[in-house]
Amino acid sequence: MRRLRTLEQTELLAYMGKWLVISSAAAVLAGSASAFFLAALEWATATREAQPWMIWLLPVAGFVVGWAYDSVGKPVEAGNNLIIDEIHDPKKVIPRRMVPLVFIGTVMSHLFGASVGREGTAVQMGAALADQLTGVFRLKHADRRIVLMVGMSAGFAAVFGTPLAGALFGLEVLAIGRMRYDALFPCVIAGIVADRVCIAWGIHHTLYVVPFVTAVTFRTVLTVIVAGFAFGLVGLLFAKATHAVGGLMKRWITYAPLRPVVGGSVIAVSVMLLSTERYIGLGIPTIVAAFQHPLAPWDFAGKFAYTVASLGSGFKGGEVTPLFFIGATLGNALAPLLSLPVPMLAGLGFVAVFAGAANVPLACTVMAIELFGPAIAPFAAIACVASYMFSGHAGIYHAQRLGHAK
Amino acid sequence: MRRLRTLEQTELLAYMGKWLVISSAAAVLAGSASAFFLAALEWATATREAQPWMIWLLPVAGFVVGWAYDSVGKPVEAGNNLIIDEIHDPKKVIPRRMVPLVFIGTVMSHLFGASVGREGTAVQMGAALADQLTGVFRLKHADRRIVLMVGMSAGFAAVFGTPLAGALFGLEVLAIGRMRYDALFPCVIAGIVADRVCIAWGIHHTLYVVPFVTAVTFRTVLTVIVAGFAFGLVGLLFAKATHAVGGLMKRWITYAPLRPVVGGSVIAVSVMLLSTERYIGLGIPTIVAAFQHPLAPWDFAGKFAYTVASLGSGFKGGEVTPLFFIGATLGNALAPLLSLPVPMLAGLGFVAVFAGAANVPLACTVMAIELFGPAIAPFAAIACVASYMFSGHAGIYHAQRLGHAK
Repeated sequence: MRRLRTLEQTELLAYMGKWLVISSAAAVLAGSASAFFLAALEWATATREAQPWMIWLLPVAGFVVGWAYDSVGKPVEAGNNLIIDEIHDPKKVIPRRMVPLVFIGTVMSHLFGASVGREGTAVQMGAALADQLTGVFRLKHADRRIVLMVGMSAGFAAVFGTPLAGALFGLEVLAIGRMRYDALFPCVIAGIVADRVCIAWGIHHTLYVVPFVTAVTFRTVLTVIVAGFAFGLVGLLFAKATHAVGGLMKRWITYAPLRPVVGGSVIAVSVMLLSTERYIGLGIPTIVAAFQHPLAPWDFAGKFAYTVASLGSGFKGGEVTPLFFIGATLGNALAPLLSLPVPMLAGLGFVAVFAGAANVPLACTVMAIELFGPAIAPFAAIACVASYMFSGHAGIYHAQRLGHAK
Repeated sequence: MRRLRTLEQTELLAYMGKWLVISSAAAVLAGSASAFFLAALEWATATREAQPWMIWLLPVAGFVVGWAYDSVGKPVEAGNNLIIDEIHDPKKVIPRRMVPLVFIGTVMSHLFGASVGREGTAVQMGAALADQLTGVFRLKHADRRIVLMVGMSAGFAAVFGTPLAGALFGLEVLAIGRMRYDALFPCVIAGIVADRVCIAWGIHHTLYVVPFVTAVTFRTVLTVIVAGFAFGLVGLLFAKATHAVGGLMKRWITYAPLRPVVGGSVIAVSVMLLSTERYIGLGIPTIVAAFQHPLAPWDFAGKFAYTVASLGSGFKGGEVTPLFFIGATLGNALAPLLSLPVPMLAGLGFVAVFAGAANVPLACTVMAIELFGPAIAPFAAIACVASYMFSGHAGIYHAQRLGHAK
């Protein structure tokens, strides 16, 4: 018995040593990829903002990216869903080409003015790069599952500068209503190392400031639950709308590269006619402004429409930064109605719409603490959990399985 | 389909409304019980410290409490394990008598100088009180499971002033290596409300200050992993030792009320001979000191011995505050060896020994953020997860099930 116990600790030590090495290696790859990606996005955004006419090339850019995916990208087109599927049911190593395709595809989206995010790209690059270690370390099926989760965690942590939220995202996103701890140690290491690696490359993350948070009272708790419903409903509608538009485009336009041509044309014309530049690209300045002063109450709807049009017609990039935008501006608009401070409700919307749309309430609660400080913790938990509950069983990642019904 | 979707949201809304009411009611009960309990502990500790001779009555106090449990307390003697068992396999409502028995039993332990904690008491009172709502709201089996988890979360949150750590504790403690979200909303509400209720009764929680945290570097991450091993090993040994001493006492002394008489006599004589007063009771002043300056390197071992003797011989009270003491003093002792700041490593030990002994790494990581601020977050995650991993599959709660092997 004593011998057995000693053996267990030796085995656990060996497991941890092994994953310290593999996770760190994966995190260096994913963190570096995220750093270069963030630098490229900064360049793309600055370039587009300096030359607004570039949006007229959005349909062309869409065609090029669509054509590239149609020619050589079919095996990696499912993106995040491919990775989640591989984790649930490992079949074969993610093709390396996922990395350049999604990197260039997303930078093109931002350079020419689609409304997309970046977490999808970071997560796909992270997981695809991490999966290349499968051969190097001769990993078996069970270990490959973990290395993919590690890559997702690392990519997410690095791109947003939130190490623990990244770690939890990789664990939480696989299934609704359940978290397994089998990759807990590897994902925590990956999140922390990837974040440091990205910062070591000279990347600075945007600071969102929530200068004060109200007291936890009967009224504020109830009000934040109501806000959570609104965030969850918008998250649910976003997931439904993206899937619906994507489905319609597929039915109407059989030749895939033409879909972003149509989507890009609609976006370009409407931006030029309506002067809605603030709804394209990442929209960081508007997100920052949402923490500072009241904005137009329809900003969240504008971003919603442009993002659904962009992603639904096949532009590459993530959903999450647009969801941050939608959430922060929706919180901004709700603040006066609910008699809560603007920065606080912007911060809650920032994390909670995403929590509902992706079914990751704990990762988002921790993200709120990492980005806005610990005072917001109880409200973030309430908003994220209420949004998660109310958003039902649909989500932006259709490969996500149902672990336990809500 | 549209009708179905609307129905789902209506159902979720009804579910959340129902649990908002039930969780809040349970949290008011549990938070109030914790507040009175904390006030009683303060009185008991002050009284004992003013009259050190009272420790000679510890054997008598042990007999009285042992006799009370032997006469009327058999159905509730299993304590936390009874509650965890009921959640896994609901049979019948927890008897109300659990509340006064564990309350008075624990206050007696502290008044006469056993080395025990308080979370076991708060959790048992919380769950037993919450379970009384089963009749009031006519709850079915599935809902009774949730109400018990709510009571555990509420008791834990209130007694330590950590709302989110409390919420996660109720969800995480049931099984090793898995967390289900079925009680996520009810437990979050319970943790937040119970904490506020306890504070509204005028309770002040001890402040532990970690004034600064080192940068996240290759060296500090590796060092904190090594510290995590030490914390996990001590947590494992604590669980094993408590179970072993408890088993031996049961084999040697068949009449239960005599066991604390023997244990209490050993404790009283040794405290008087060795002047080891700082290892009895809660030991808050020593925990606070562990965050401030170097202490004797054997302090953690002293507290370990007195707590194992107290709990193993049948005194009532929790394991957690002694584990905070053991962890903080062990971290304090390790700090110079590992070239890390004393307050930082005391804080990490505080949460990580408990994380390993009770298999609750996420609750403890969040607890570190709630108590010591967000700068410690990445290190807390590493220390708690390393300790959790290395402590293996034994733990202080033997009713805890194995959800997923480490």
